[in-house]
Amino acid sequence: MSDISLPGIAVVGFDADDTLWRSEDFFEEAQDRYEAIVGRYVDLSDSTAREQLYGIETANLKVFGYGVKSMTLSMIEAAVLLTDGRIDGADVHRIVEIGKDMLVHPVELLDGVTEAVGAVAERFPVVLITKGDLIHQESKVRASGLSSTFSRIEIVSEKDPLTYTRVLRELEVEPGQFVMVGNSVRSDITPVLALGGWGVHIPYHLTWQYEEQTEPPAAGDLPRMRTLASMRELPDTLTELSPT
Amino acid sequence: MSDISLPGIAVVGFDADDTLWRSEDFFEEAQDRYEAIVGRYVDLSDSTAREQLYGIETANLKVFGYGVKSMTLSMIEAAVLLTDGRIDGADVHRIVEIGKDMLVHPVELLDGVTEAVGAVAERFPVVLITKGDLIHQESKVRASGLSSTFSRIEIVSEKDPLTYTRVLRELEVEPGQFVMVGNSVRSDITPVLALGGWGVHIPYHLTWQYEEQTEPPAAGDLPRMRTLASMRELPDTLTELSPT
Repeated sequence: MSDISLPGIAVVGFDADDTLWRSEDFFEEAQDRYEAIVGRYVDLSDSTAREQLYGIETANLKVFGYGVKSMTLSMIEAAVLLTDGRIDGADVHRIVEIGKDMLVHPVELLDGVTEAVGAVAERFPVVLITKGDLIHQESKVRASGLSSTFSRIEIVSEKDPLTYTRVLRELEVEPGQFVMVGNSVRSDITPVLALGGWGVHIPYHLTWQYEEQTEPPAAGDLPRMRTLASMRELPDTLTELSPT
Repeated sequence: MSDISLPGIAVVGFDADDTLWRSEDFFEEAQDRYEAIVGRYVDLSDSTAREQLYGIETANLKVFGYGVKSMTLSMIEAAVLLTDGRIDGADVHRIVEIGKDMLVHPVELLDGVTEAVGAVAERFPVVLITKGDLIHQESKVRASGLSSTFSRIEIVSEKDPLTYTRVLRELEVEPGQFVMVGNSVRSDITPVLALGGWGVHIPYHLTWQYEEQTEPPAAGDLPRMRTLASMRELPDTLTELSPT
């Protein structure tokens, strides 16, 4: 690491879902409820159903984007196809309700988040950068009690180098002075490293299949990446990266 | 008007749907397609169906937010209820397709928009402030050819005084130096006037029922409002408001 240096952190970015609060757990619960409904029409034991839903979901991402509403519409479409149109109206309505229940589900902060984010925010400007449904993310930020902690909340449709470039330009920060903290290598770490920024990866016990499909960061970028077991380690890690 | 003055315009905000490009037309077409589907199950001639869909849509706005995905989910829910669950899978799928078709529909700019926005952008920073589906609005901005014209694009979940206060703070502009241009009195004009800002109302030939339900601006705010027949009149109006 002698050949690289972090010339002081100017801004710390945080992912939201599965970094600050539980999310993928609720998507898995929704998936279970969905399979219980469709399983009354077709045999799902060969796991084809889950694969077919995943195929429809990923094909729909380009049109529908990320988030609960997108998932719900894909579930409805997949249910019609899987059942050859035999799904009845009441069950379609039950799938709509799965989406509604997720959107109004209480926020469950992950262990140590309030303390760690609070400690980081005392030293650096912190921004939230998340994808998903605009209204859902805004309501979760409000419910989290963290909205006044974040100087800015960016809800984006994709987390790729182009999006990070735009956000960093609006924040007037150089990539080399920006650290992104998140659970997804694909969305939070690799694109930021590719721009010359820094990444702190805090894995979550569940990862959405889609987020798992990623190239690892380039070998030359790895010195600008850290991996932590818990958000509680973050303040010390940032001190290591940016001694005051 | 002798008692008020505009101390120079610092930023001009533009609404998007039905201000820059056609939108409500496509929602009405979607509604017609939806009624053609549901009309095969129930008699819609008494207009109860449209009212019931509208009731479900507005009830769902708090959970689903604005935009095409929200509308599509509400249409599916309303179709199940209106048909007492008799709607079949193929027709549910057709409603999903209505939503997809809207999301990929080509952008149709309104008359004079490119010239007027271009002329305004030569004199003032222009920002886009719109609600709806994040991914849909972003794709429309890209397709419009206007993305490089706007210094900033804000996609918000609600257009109320709180949201405008946040956006103006991020833009570092005082309300009295901000002009909002849009077709909806409810979303684009009244909340901005209430903050002490300026509003240019350019009515569209169609208005979503929801946007029509609004109190008129306070009488004392009216001197800071203009109403134009066409976007083509905007550059001259801004010159009147902010002589160089």
